[in-house]
Amino acid sequence: MENIRVDLGANSYDICIGSGLLRTGNMLLEKIQGRRVFVVSNQVVADHYLDRVRQQLKGVDVDVHLMPDGEQFKTLQTLEAIIGDLLAKGHNRSTTIVALGGGVVGDTAGYAAATYQRGVPFIQVPTTLLSQVDSSVGGKTAVNHELGKNMIGAFYQPKGVYIDTDTLLTLPERELSAGLAEIIKHGVLADSEYFDLIEKDIGQLRQKDEGALISAIKGSCQIKASVVAEDERESGKRALLNFGHTFAHAIETGMGYGQWLHGEAVGAGMVMAADLSARLGRCSLDDSQRIKALVKSAGLPIAGPAEVSTEAMLAFMAKDKKATDEGLRFVLIAGGIGKTDIVQDVPVSVLRQTLTAGLRLCE
Amino acid sequence: MENIRVDLGANSYDICIGSGLLRTGNMLLEKIQGRRVFVVSNQVVADHYLDRVRQQLKGVDVDVHLMPDGEQFKTLQTLEAIIGDLLAKGHNRSTTIVALGGGVVGDTAGYAAATYQRGVPFIQVPTTLLSQVDSSVGGKTAVNHELGKNMIGAFYQPKGVYIDTDTLLTLPERELSAGLAEIIKHGVLADSEYFDLIEKDIGQLRQKDEGALISAIKGSCQIKASVVAEDERESGKRALLNFGHTFAHAIETGMGYGQWLHGEAVGAGMVMAADLSARLGRCSLDDSQRIKALVKSAGLPIAGPAEVSTEAMLAFMAKDKKATDEGLRFVLIAGGIGKTDIVQDVPVSVLRQTLTAGLRLCE
Repeated sequence: MENIRVDLGANSYDICIGSGLLRTGNMLLEKIQGRRVFVVSNQVVADHYLDRVRQQLKGVDVDVHLMPDGEQFKTLQTLEAIIGDLLAKGHNRSTTIVALGGGVVGDTAGYAAATYQRGVPFIQVPTTLLSQVDSSVGGKTAVNHELGKNMIGAFYQPKGVYIDTDTLLTLPERELSAGLAEIIKHGVLADSEYFDLIEKDIGQLRQKDEGALISAIKGSCQIKASVVAEDERESGKRALLNFGHTFAHAIETGMGYGQWLHGEAVGAGMVMAADLSARLGRCSLDDSQRIKALVKSAGLPIAGPAEVSTEAMLAFMAKDKKATDEGLRFVLIAGGIGKTDIVQDVPVSVLRQTLTAGLRLCE
Repeated sequence: MENIRVDLGANSYDICIGSGLLRTGNMLLEKIQGRRVFVVSNQVVADHYLDRVRQQLKGVDVDVHLMPDGEQFKTLQTLEAIIGDLLAKGHNRSTTIVALGGGVVGDTAGYAAATYQRGVPFIQVPTTLLSQVDSSVGGKTAVNHELGKNMIGAFYQPKGVYIDTDTLLTLPERELSAGLAEIIKHGVLADSEYFDLIEKDIGQLRQKDEGALISAIKGSCQIKASVVAEDERESGKRALLNFGHTFAHAIETGMGYGQWLHGEAVGAGMVMAADLSARLGRCSLDDSQRIKALVKSAGLPIAGPAEVSTEAMLAFMAKDKKATDEGLRFVLIAGGIGKTDIVQDVPVSVLRQTLTAGLRLCE
């Protein structure tokens, strides 16, 4: 088993990664301090893994709340239903909330944990590649508003993250690719050797090779944990994790939640961010082509949807939370793969070139 | 002008108290770091004080969101409307949210600030006595769920609190009394000399005497700031601030929000908590009678509503968030007025005696 420490002072916690974590031992139980657990999951994930979680939690009372599956249900309405269920079942501040599922379950359950009675303990058991390498690490929780993604949320750290790579065996291919998007992102933003590794292993990763998956997940969690440890509340360096995301959020908002997977939007968004970086002379054309090729090899779209116009993209980006008083911020490559920084003053004319190029789906 | 520091490390802030603060200078503006402000208020308060706030904020862009008035609107639906307005008007993480109003506005706007884009700066301008001495100090924000009060929220500290006692001149008598409930509470829980002062000044306070009000507000804020500084997230001593509140929340839940003012429920709740303390031999009958007499002199109910049965009260209290795995917790007097502690093992039989006695409205 691999263990990664996320170092956040009083809010520090461990990420445990291994094959079969949910089948053996009782690691989950060790992290429960009270006598009651409230598991948030969805029907599909629960059918596969709830029994294993219950086995892990013998000795405490376990209630289960199944929320609907899909980004379009990451809403205040779902939050209200979870809180209502917690109250109806008499849970108090000693209850631990366990998120069993992908990013939608993790973000929503995490926000419920952050807000229920102003905060109860919380554990992540991510079951998709994307949530294992990205959303379960770092304490960002949120639900969507119809006018913007992740606009209602909190920074709230879990007490632990348990990644059983066996859960990926039932993951649909499209969702596996979506997770690879964030893995590629971590290489681009912080570690060229890790990018090389993913480039080399991309075939095995898509075949769900256990060793390749554990290496990739571990490397991604390390990169993310290191960035988050430096900047828990995204006042500085953490923003680098948004490489490709300003474009991705605009795509998702333009298409309506649930049409494109988040990772798919990030795939196309990273191609756009690399294109913009190259146009601004911040990386070589070769680097931007390598990124595009790896995104494609991961089974991800390399261009935005034809349905969202350049002007619509620009409007959505202006509303994105990464916008500041100084104008649109972009995370762009700084010299080459493995290094990025934040750029405030991107000329709109160049941005339009990228968007126009990036919007041709059949490039 | 009186200035009280709330000492919470990186989250520290000042409470400024004075007559005419909103008429003179530009104290509010000094606390705004970005270029935009989003004021949350309601129509009644805005009619009286919004112009003064706008005068204070010359030099920054000010948007205003008026929410409906009343505890029954402290909901996720109101939160969603505020967030929607923030998004529609293009506010980003640099925007400061200003809460102008009583506890309902402060709690809701504070929770909106805690959650909008995972947190934006926040300033309290409380305009009721209750919010000036209690809810605006300490960083508790929340909205209600239909199954329980303040069940959805966050600990989120403001950047500053501005208390202009002139705003009390338009406050209805019933709401003034509601504020006096929390003032009395602060004396009972932590400071017998302050209790003596309030007992002496109660007539002048009800007459809105400026000097008496400033002394009472300052003393209450000092007591609350001191308790909060020791225990920001209510893991220990802060729970003492809930003296009378376990009963009060049950009354409010039983009656439906908005029927009794929070302070009125606290008034009756404190009489019950004092009665329970006396029955358990934790204070003299004289102390409990003094508390009841002062609650009455403040114009507050000294018994619960006839509409809520003892059994209903017990059921609501079991759901209260102060309940733990160990059973119902009460804050009770420890020896005499000015000292309280938390009691876990109250016999239900004695609790029933208090509730049965306390529910006769015409005692």
